[in-house]
Amino acid sequence: MMQVTTTDLYEVTMALSYLREGMRAPATFSLFVRDLPPGRGFLVAAGLEPALDHLSRFRIGRADVREFAEVLGWPVETLEPLHGLSFDGQVRAVPEGRLVFPGEPLVEVTAPLPQAQLVETYLLSLLCHQTTVASKAARCVLAAGGKPLVDFSLRRSHGPAAGMQAARLGALVGFAGTSNVAAAVRYGIPGSGTMAHSYVQAFPSEEEAFRAFARSHPGPVTFVVDTYDTGRGVETAARVLGELERGPGCAVRLDSGDLGELARRARATLDAAGLRDVGIIASGGLDEYAIDGLVRDGAPIDVFAVGTRVGVAADSPYLDAAYKLVEYDGTPVMKLSPGKATAPGPKQVFRGPGLRDVVGLANEEPPAGTEPLLRTVMRGGLRTEPPDTLDAARARFEADLALLPEPARRIENPEAPVPGMSTRLGVLSTIVRHRIEARSGS
Amino acid sequence: MMQVTTTDLYEVTMALSYLREGMRAPATFSLFVRDLPPGRGFLVAAGLEPALDHLSRFRIGRADVREFAEVLGWPVETLEPLHGLSFDGQVRAVPEGRLVFPGEPLVEVTAPLPQAQLVETYLLSLLCHQTTVASKAARCVLAAGGKPLVDFSLRRSHGPAAGMQAARLGALVGFAGTSNVAAAVRYGIPGSGTMAHSYVQAFPSEEEAFRAFARSHPGPVTFVVDTYDTGRGVETAARVLGELERGPGCAVRLDSGDLGELARRARATLDAAGLRDVGIIASGGLDEYAIDGLVRDGAPIDVFAVGTRVGVAADSPYLDAAYKLVEYDGTPVMKLSPGKATAPGPKQVFRGPGLRDVVGLANEEPPAGTEPLLRTVMRGGLRTEPPDTLDAARARFEADLALLPEPARRIENPEAPVPGMSTRLGVLSTIVRHRIEARSGS
Repeated sequence: MMQVTTTDLYEVTMALSYLREGMRAPATFSLFVRDLPPGRGFLVAAGLEPALDHLSRFRIGRADVREFAEVLGWPVETLEPLHGLSFDGQVRAVPEGRLVFPGEPLVEVTAPLPQAQLVETYLLSLLCHQTTVASKAARCVLAAGGKPLVDFSLRRSHGPAAGMQAARLGALVGFAGTSNVAAAVRYGIPGSGTMAHSYVQAFPSEEEAFRAFARSHPGPVTFVVDTYDTGRGVETAARVLGELERGPGCAVRLDSGDLGELARRARATLDAAGLRDVGIIASGGLDEYAIDGLVRDGAPIDVFAVGTRVGVAADSPYLDAAYKLVEYDGTPVMKLSPGKATAPGPKQVFRGPGLRDVVGLANEEPPAGTEPLLRTVMRGGLRTEPPDTLDAARARFEADLALLPEPARRIENPEAPVPGMSTRLGVLSTIVRHRIEARSGS
Repeated sequence: MMQVTTTDLYEVTMALSYLREGMRAPATFSLFVRDLPPGRGFLVAAGLEPALDHLSRFRIGRADVREFAEVLGWPVETLEPLHGLSFDGQVRAVPEGRLVFPGEPLVEVTAPLPQAQLVETYLLSLLCHQTTVASKAARCVLAAGGKPLVDFSLRRSHGPAAGMQAARLGALVGFAGTSNVAAAVRYGIPGSGTMAHSYVQAFPSEEEAFRAFARSHPGPVTFVVDTYDTGRGVETAARVLGELERGPGCAVRLDSGDLGELARRARATLDAAGLRDVGIIASGGLDEYAIDGLVRDGAPIDVFAVGTRVGVAADSPYLDAAYKLVEYDGTPVMKLSPGKATAPGPKQVFRGPGLRDVVGLANEEPPAGTEPLLRTVMRGGLRTEPPDTLDAARARFEADLALLPEPARRIENPEAPVPGMSTRLGVLSTIVRHRIEARSGS
């Protein structure tokens, strides 16, 4: 419902102008990230699945035309040429979960110019956000070194819809669960939940709170132990858990203070009580930097729950992404703005061993031993294959991650691999640049 | 539809436990921000209107109960006590648009404990995000020093739904328009649009592009001039605009490079062509810091278009907000976790002249000359007054902003006013802390 008009106004006026000028020839737009944000050695391609959903449903109805006219203050008849327009183009894209590097197209759209232009804003909104969050979550996976992560980000994401995606993207990079019930159901992710401090506060004592929680909670339980004094909280939890005999899967949660030191003391207390199978969950402002520190320090933490900083990708919450026209009506084009120049023509990424990539032209023969990263996922406005699954995306992520070179894996000061440029793309860039400069100089 | 189950799983298990334990007495939760993020001297309260919409509609249906059971892996009957639960509590809140400071409650919810607990996640998600973005946008308003701002953030917000809110929040703090068509319609905000570089690239030359755009665009037009060479782009725009004679409201847009220097040269070119009423719009990674620099430097820019960095509040994309139980069944409670201690009891903020605030108890007599900031906006689950308007919120924002002291207004290194604490709240905190420590020490 908020699909078609949730767009920048200029997409509408440009599309209208193209239609009036008879410019309906095929155009190719390339969606790519110019430079990685600080603190990123790679990106995880994400957002394609909802983007394809959007394109499949894209159709300008009469109500949309009225809204365009209302905002422009133009007679509704002047917008009539847009009525009924849908998306029947081709999409080539990097599947979700694959690692990508600076300058590599995530998506290329080829469609009659008005259509390809109109879908720009929505595609950018989905792809930028989701690639940003997936990439942040993937760094937490690297930092955790095999220990499970769960997503607690819903309350701090940029609204509930962004929280839904954060849960999905966590699962895409291998998180073990999410606290978000709706996301757990919709995406088939295990649910994860503990208890809040308010629960403890609502009872006369911590011990009464823990016992009451266990009464209504069959199976393993997790007690939050830092509402008042963490040391005493752990002792109380150990006493109640010892009596409950709920077996493996029970845990205590630490949510404040020096998590490494508190985890060590909690482990000692639990072990002394014979509760070696009671785990320790850490939460509270965790991100890949904090997790990395705790893991390197050998903190006996069994599960990391990440929220705020991961759900909004706090240190780099956006990408310098662009959706640029690279070919119109068979002619490659490029932009020359300082610092924002783009390479011309539809492209392909050829991935060699060890994630050594070369960006070339879409119609080039793949160099020997390389795999083309962009696949045709939509043709004539229809998906070429059934919707992707989270499991398949996760498998792609894990396969690429295993090959990622050390400098890009680093938590502190990572360095991204720099893709090469194919000879043919280099030559084309030079030719197009000269053509544009000769013309504007004349 | 994604309302009730879009929540953290622990809200569900805690609520269920409260119901089983017969703990349905009134509880008061306080939603507040502990500390302001770096680079913030104030916050703009926002998110209340959608939060009240959510509470008005909150009702756990049979399908929701099934989803809870599915995620917990429990028999559906065990979740049956939640079926039919709706929100019939009281909400006291700071109206949207008012400035707030560290430790001041934005919202206080008083309802039977299970209800008040269940709505936590969704309220935090809405209030945190929207207050974050409104506060960032407000700093741009301060930096712009009276020049108009427009919102171009949709493509970089954390998904389209967050982009809708960014447009609303920009308008709340006085932005002149938004590029987002759907938001313009829904919230009654003027639409704003120019042209993209891709439009220019799709034509054989810049000049042909400008002329074609004008053909299908009645009234004032804006040309983007930095697709190839900005100096030549401005000259071409000046030539076409001079012939068009479209009058005031036409503009050129600069989107890259040294915006201050380019604006000066563009102004000179336009003036020399007799086009004194053609404006200059600047865009491209602008935030309050960049705008402040341009304004101080006297750059002849007429409109600032902000996107990426403002829509995601890039330098501080989240708030350290909490939703804490402060009273249950008439007994004030508090949390003592290190660095996360909370003050007990339902509260009020008493605002004195010059935004000098005192946080006290809700049932205190307001000190002479002060205004209580929290108003009762919902009672028995129903709004006490008609939905608020953006105009009313903007008026409150502007009135508070006019009184904001200089240290809090600063763009670089702002300092927020520190609210005082009333004697009664101080005494109560001491009493409750002693009560808890005595109990847990026994």
